Amino acid sequence: MDTDHINSLSHKRTSEEIYNQACKIIPGGVSRNTIFHHPYPHYISHANGCYATDINNIQRLDFGNNMAALIHGHAHPDIVDAVIKQIRKGTAYTMATEAEVLYAQLLCDRTPSFEKIRFVNSGTEAVMAMIKTARAYTGRPKIAKAEGAYHGTYDFAEVSQTANPANWGDINQPNSVPVANGTPQSVLNDVIIFPYNDIEHTLAILDQNASEIACVIIDPVPHRVGLMEGKTNFIEAIYEWTRKNGALLAFDEVVTYRVNYGGAQQNYSVKPDLTALGKIIGGGFPVGAFAGRSDIMKVLDPRESKLLFPHSGTFSANPVSMTAGHTTMKMYNKDAILKLNTLTQKATDQIREAIKIADVPVSITGTGSMFRLHLKPSAPTSYREAYQNCETKTLINEMLDYLFLDEKIMMINTLTCMFSTVMTQKEIDMLSQALLNMFKRFKTQLHSLDK
Amino acid sequence: MDTDHINSLSHKRTSEEIYNQACKIIPGGVSRNTIFHHPYPHYISHANGCYATDINNIQRLDFGNNMAALIHGHAHPDIVDAVIKQIRKGTAYTMATEAEVLYAQLLCDRTPSFEKIRFVNSGTEAVMAMIKTARAYTGRPKIAKAEGAYHGTYDFAEVSQTANPANWGDINQPNSVPVANGTPQSVLNDVIIFPYNDIEHTLAILDQNASEIACVIIDPVPHRVGLMEGKTNFIEAIYEWTRKNGALLAFDEVVTYRVNYGGAQQNYSVKPDLTALGKIIGGGFPVGAFAGRSDIMKVLDPRESKLLFPHSGTFSANPVSMTAGHTTMKMYNKDAILKLNTLTQKATDQIREAIKIADVPVSITGTGSMFRLHLKPSAPTSYREAYQNCETKTLINEMLDYLFLDEKIMMINTLTCMFSTVMTQKEIDMLSQALLNMFKRFKTQLHSLDK
Ligand SMILES: Cc1ncc(COP(=O)(O)O)c(C=O)c1O
Ligand SMILES: Cc1ncc(COP(=O)(O)O)c(C=O)c1O
Repeated sequence: MDTDHINSLSHKRTSEEIYNQACKIIPGGVSRNTIFHHPYPHYISHANGCYATDINNIQRLDFGNNMAALIHGHAHPDIVDAVIKQIRKGTAYTMATEAEVLYAQLLCDRTPSFEKIRFVNSGTEAVMAMIKTARAYTGRPKIAKAEGAYHGTYDFAEVSQTANPANWGDINQPNSVPVANGTPQSVLNDVIIFPYNDIEHTLAILDQNASEIACVIIDPVPHRVGLMEGKTNFIEAIYEWTRKNGALLAFDEVVTYRVNYGGAQQNYSVKPDLTALGKIIGGGFPVGAFAGRSDIMKVLDPRESKLLFPHSGTFSANPVSMTAGHTTMKMYNKDAILKLNTLTQKATDQIREAIKIADVPVSITGTGSMFRLHLKPSAPTSYREAYQNCETKTLINEMLDYLFLDEKIMMINTLTCMFSTVMTQKEIDMLSQALLNMFKRFKTQLHSLDK
Repeated sequence: MDTDHINSLSHKRTSEEIYNQACKIIPGGVSRNTIFHHPYPHYISHANGCYATDINNIQRLDFGNNMAALIHGHAHPDIVDAVIKQIRKGTAYTMATEAEVLYAQLLCDRTPSFEKIRFVNSGTEAVMAMIKTARAYTGRPKIAKAEGAYHGTYDFAEVSQTANPANWGDINQPNSVPVANGTPQSVLNDVIIFPYNDIEHTLAILDQNASEIACVIIDPVPHRVGLMEGKTNFIEAIYEWTRKNGALLAFDEVVTYRVNYGGAQQNYSVKPDLTALGKIIGGGFPVGAFAGRSDIMKVLDPRESKLLFPHSGTFSANPVSMTAGHTTMKMYNKDAILKLNTLTQKATDQIREAIKIADVPVSITGTGSMFRLHLKPSAPTSYREAYQNCETKTLINEMLDYLFLDEKIMMINTLTCMFSTVMTQKEIDMLSQALLNMFKRFKTQLHSLDK
């Protein structure tokens, strides 16, 4: 049997051996750069709840949760059961399924701004479709986005995600910096970059392109910018600007939908016109979605005499992702969210205590069930402040290695933790103890960074 | 239990009732326009092998196979078993898995031009990443693609997919026609459109943009163009042109990889530099991949001092899609392909016979395990010839309805059939008999179209 062959192989080779084979057939030996690791990545065998076990049978406490995608941790029995039932009935058809309708209803019921919704296969596809929807509705070509914010790999959406001091330009007029070589100049011209949470500069920049902007994209807690919450007056100012200038406000809640019952947008009085989703709403399976105002989403309606935005996708709304997502989000109810956010608050309290005890210049940003550590005494308030120079990056990698190898703890590679509902006080104590050990161990380096 | 609730609901409501709910929360009530149907789509309950059963317990013979994505039909027991084993161990991690390496190896072993490969989540993502790879490698902004060819929903890739007589312009210089309203003019400027299989016009058009073209994208059997094979001298001429002009030849084999053991490219002496994959290689789960020359794919290698194309994706190479795909493609070996292609040949022979018996002006295009019917006496050789006017489209929809409702046969909405390995002579006979009945029934309309 093929699968037995696959399984048996996986226990015979070391991670280094597997990686050597991988390098011959996969660029860099990794399918996603986020899992790349020097000198080779560790290969996983299986995972359960909040623990992941590698092929050497070493178990680790997992705060990565597949880059924030697993809100109930790994292999939750209710999700596994529901999905297996579906898989036995088929995984995808050239026909509609009730699963997509029931799940669409659940999400629209949770978030008032979701009047209509469409499913796709990734956060990247969700953001791309959301941008195309905004363009189709407004007839305008440009988008505006925050410097440093990650919105997936659609080239318009990724501009300036990796901007650095050598190329980011003046804060009054941040450059549109390509992420990929060969990005057409026209793409850069059609993307306006603004500094997150900086009302004055942002409004001035938007004003210069007022009549051409289809939408302003905002991640309400942008991980790569620094995982700081969007300030209420910043979000409100952008909302007001979009009302005055015929543009749409588009939220990227691919990561932040976990923050509250209706997403992070629930924390603001103003509502986005469109929202992109992904990660946890797939229950561990590939997913994306975009939702928003009925009159805007109408551009996707094939019953209209002129269909402004024809959109399909072979695996969009497949019943496996729908069933896994539905089961997941039903369990992720108001009580579960409150419990999880409280636990995360407890964790950051304990970690702040550890920072004090170890007396290290480390700060914390984040909200809900996520936090990020910064190797500086006070929490950064902008992408440029949070930006890590080479020395800092090297130290972070050493700390991640220490946590992974010595403390058996997995984090996201920015020193970010994404909590799951299966965690308890025990795991929080493990985490804060490990971080205390780490702070003590790296104290000298941390202080010398701060100079 | 949530899932029991979902399952029990699905047997209580009619398709019309489900669709009425869907219309309130999903634009057009459908998650993919390809499954849209007047006055409402039929909802599926389950599927097995080559049969799909709707919620009214009506079973149909399925030649759609989720838009060509299921090479072994629905719920193949070996795939189901392998996937369930994986799901119990978790579905996605922030770590590497051996599954992705073993599957990458299998695909690279099948197709000589696949020196390196990366997995993504859909054909759309695969084509987008392939184009970005070509741009990163060449540093050039433009792409060239065939009028009418569908390559997913990335805006650059979809230009002129739905071009029509009112907007397609002169064949010497086909217009770049937007699919979505609001497509930036700059996107249209960066996409060069050529007429498929027309060497003379294509070379002249490419020549005009010689120094700016990163890649020429070719689907070797483009479904939406008309499902006609790329002529050998056409493919060779484009290959030669790319060699002379520093551009890459990029194949979209998202659909056509099924055609031969190494994909449709195996049928040509010249090899593409890059290839996009999807559909069947996911074994029923969301997938995409792009593969090609090592020196080109190096732009993705995070170990390079300057990473030209940083690329990630939350669900890319997830072990569920990898395991399902690996199991699927192992079974889809040379014998299985030969058997399937022979069966399909048999089917088209029988259908040609039916066309003769019924004496209708219908023709067939296609190769391997796919064919498409055209409502004209001789097979079209170009997109413009294959183009269906409103009257033709209406008749096609009537014929599809007849097949679906009366003959219990599902096809893709262009009158295209995608065969699966679980089909036998019995299903071929059912198909050709159903088509004979259909030809007889619609004979008058078919002949009046031809006038
Ligand atoms: C905020 C945000 N948007 C979009 C994406 C893209 O999602 P995906 O990786 O599923 O394409 C991500 C992924 O990390 C993200 O963090
Ligand atoms: C030739 C071709 N390329 C690309 C795609 C896009 O694939 P997906 O629907 O998985 O995004 C399709 C889908 O039908 C296709 O037929």
